Amino acid sequence: MKIAVLPGDGIGPEVTREAVRVIEALDLGIAMDEALVGGCAYKAKGHPLPAETLDLARASDAILFGAVGDPDCDALERHLRPEQAILGLRKELTLFANLRPAKVFAGLESHSALRPEVAGAIDLLIVRELNGDVYFGEKGFRQNAKGEREGYDIMSYSESEVRRIAHVAFRAAMGRGKRLCSVDKANVLETSQLWRDVIVEVAKDYPQVELEHMYVDNAAMQLVRAPGKFDVVVTGNLFGDILSDQASMCVGSIGLLASASLGERQTAHGTFGLYEPIHGSAPDIAGKGLANPMATILSAAMLLRHSLGLAQAADRIEAAVAAVLADGVLGGDLGGTAGTAEIGDAVLAKL
Amino acid sequence: MKIAVLPGDGIGPEVTREAVRVIEALDLGIAMDEALVGGCAYKAKGHPLPAETLDLARASDAILFGAVGDPDCDALERHLRPEQAILGLRKELTLFANLRPAKVFAGLESHSALRPEVAGAIDLLIVRELNGDVYFGEKGFRQNAKGEREGYDIMSYSESEVRRIAHVAFRAAMGRGKRLCSVDKANVLETSQLWRDVIVEVAKDYPQVELEHMYVDNAAMQLVRAPGKFDVVVTGNLFGDILSDQASMCVGSIGLLASASLGERQTAHGTFGLYEPIHGSAPDIAGKGLANPMATILSAAMLLRHSLGLAQAADRIEAAVAAVLADGVLGGDLGGTAGTAEIGDAVLAKL
Ligand SMILES: CC(C)[C@H](C(=O)O)[C@@H](O)C(=O)O
Ligand SMILES: CC(C)[C@H](C(=O)O)[C@@H](O)C(=O)O
Repeated sequence: MKIAVLPGDGIGPEVTREAVRVIEALDLGIAMDEALVGGCAYKAKGHPLPAETLDLARASDAILFGAVGDPDCDALERHLRPEQAILGLRKELTLFANLRPAKVFAGLESHSALRPEVAGAIDLLIVRELNGDVYFGEKGFRQNAKGEREGYDIMSYSESEVRRIAHVAFRAAMGRGKRLCSVDKANVLETSQLWRDVIVEVAKDYPQVELEHMYVDNAAMQLVRAPGKFDVVVTGNLFGDILSDQASMCVGSIGLLASASLGERQTAHGTFGLYEPIHGSAPDIAGKGLANPMATILSAAMLLRHSLGLAQAADRIEAAVAAVLADGVLGGDLGGTAGTAEIGDAVLAKL
Repeated sequence: MKIAVLPGDGIGPEVTREAVRVIEALDLGIAMDEALVGGCAYKAKGHPLPAETLDLARASDAILFGAVGDPDCDALERHLRPEQAILGLRKELTLFANLRPAKVFAGLESHSALRPEVAGAIDLLIVRELNGDVYFGEKGFRQNAKGEREGYDIMSYSESEVRRIAHVAFRAAMGRGKRLCSVDKANVLETSQLWRDVIVEVAKDYPQVELEHMYVDNAAMQLVRAPGKFDVVVTGNLFGDILSDQASMCVGSIGLLASASLGERQTAHGTFGLYEPIHGSAPDIAGKGLANPMATILSAAMLLRHSLGLAQAADRIEAAVAAVLADGVLGGDLGGTAGTAEIGDAVLAKL
């Protein structure tokens, strides 16, 4: 079993280090190899996603990813910017299914901007498509009929792209509360109309799942009003980007939220995937030992479960994290004083 | 001075009736003519936006709009559905600037799902572009290279479209807290890159306004975490649809929120525009006298201010609404028992 570790920029390396320590402590016989990605890869190799990084990722069963983003790279051409590394990995490795669970940890309800009874009820999973939509269509600048400069991006989804993510979402719903909410903007977009048609077709294979369609503007409202009403939400790349971040913030502690981006390839014991905390590279606190590594440690747990078939080890990590939080060992993001290594040590001590 | 009154579907007619009564009570010498729009127009005339409705709107200084949407019309072809009426009005009348203020009324902080101190701090204005973006680009179904069906929609903005809305937003910021947040997804979309370039260019004309750029996913997070930090937000049609609804729900009482959609044409005393409550047609409670007419009454106040230059009359209406709310006369949407006409009567009594 082999994991590619891509720490990336900013706080990426320090939070990844703690997650690696946790995996090592479990003594599971997993090989881990590191490679550069993002702004640091651009600086060292001239590209945010160097060929050797992609090769390492391809030769692994899973990727543990830190974060990318570096203010030094803001002025670069788009294709050289750090974010292109994550978009490139998603596309090159067909990581099409982003799973973002959002749930409030017991005792941390008061960290949300939502009223505690609203936040405490949140237990949802957003399934976001990652390989299509306006992210990867033709785009550029052109002259319009009036001779003016115009920026454009083509949004599109094909039937097979929607079908593939629909099956992931329906299966996820079967393993949870058996309710699926598909989010689109079918009253305006033909891309959404096709999305909706295919979702309805795939629903026939899952008669036990209660399916609902919701417009994206309404979904953004309901995620404020009553986020506890959602079980599984499935949506496209662009709406998923917005709604999954909104949902994460509802939980109130984005330093605790993990994510998985699964591909099509099966590994010996699961599905190939990339695992990353949902927070970014936070350049302002990078290198200071202040970042909360919990989201990356929980991403490592998802990795063990989904890509390596090590559900028991994943359970152990998640229980240790919950125990540390219950002890009140909190990072600065949650009003606590615990640093990166201290939180890592606390998790190791519980294991 | 002439207002076109377009009550529309569902609760549209009953809430509009109260707003019309309020305008009449002020005895401002305004002529008001009604026309059909939405599902009821389709049923009576075969089109959601009949030519005579558009003609009446064109011949007026402003439009007071109720709501459109009718479940009977869900199965119709897209171009005949009720929502096309509002999209058609926006496009045909060049109503390009949607202004959506969101502010919590004193005493109603506890109606938000956000903690009262978070909700109570909200006082923002979203300026949404309404004539461009993926809403009005070429769209349809096509076969992709693999021979599969694909839905597509072209997103685009030209320089002049962005410049026009940028000036509206900067001027609005000058009249408020002098802070503007422009929301885009420039790390992925070329449409957003052009948007950002033009915003930066227009900013030179408003050196007193503090400008910030924010990615849409981050904006969706910040609207949960600390919505009180925003002053004016400017964004495109699609992101504006999502974020303005999210912001409205943060306030907790969408039955109280008004909106203006302004055009380019100047009237004798202001700018031609369409005014509507942000809530929809709510078919489930239509015709029962239960709907809260406050948002439409407040839309009428915006109409008097922006299109007819009657700022004093607008102030009087807004003060009357605030007084009625302070008296605890609340609709069912706010946990009260007051019906549509009762709330209208209470506002009239205060005038
Ligand atoms: C960095 C950016 C391109 C990316 C996205 O929009 O997908 C990020 O926001 C995310 O959600 O992983
Ligand atoms: C009805 C729909 C087409 C419309 C939109 O998306 O603009 C509505 O959601 C709005 O915000 O006015």
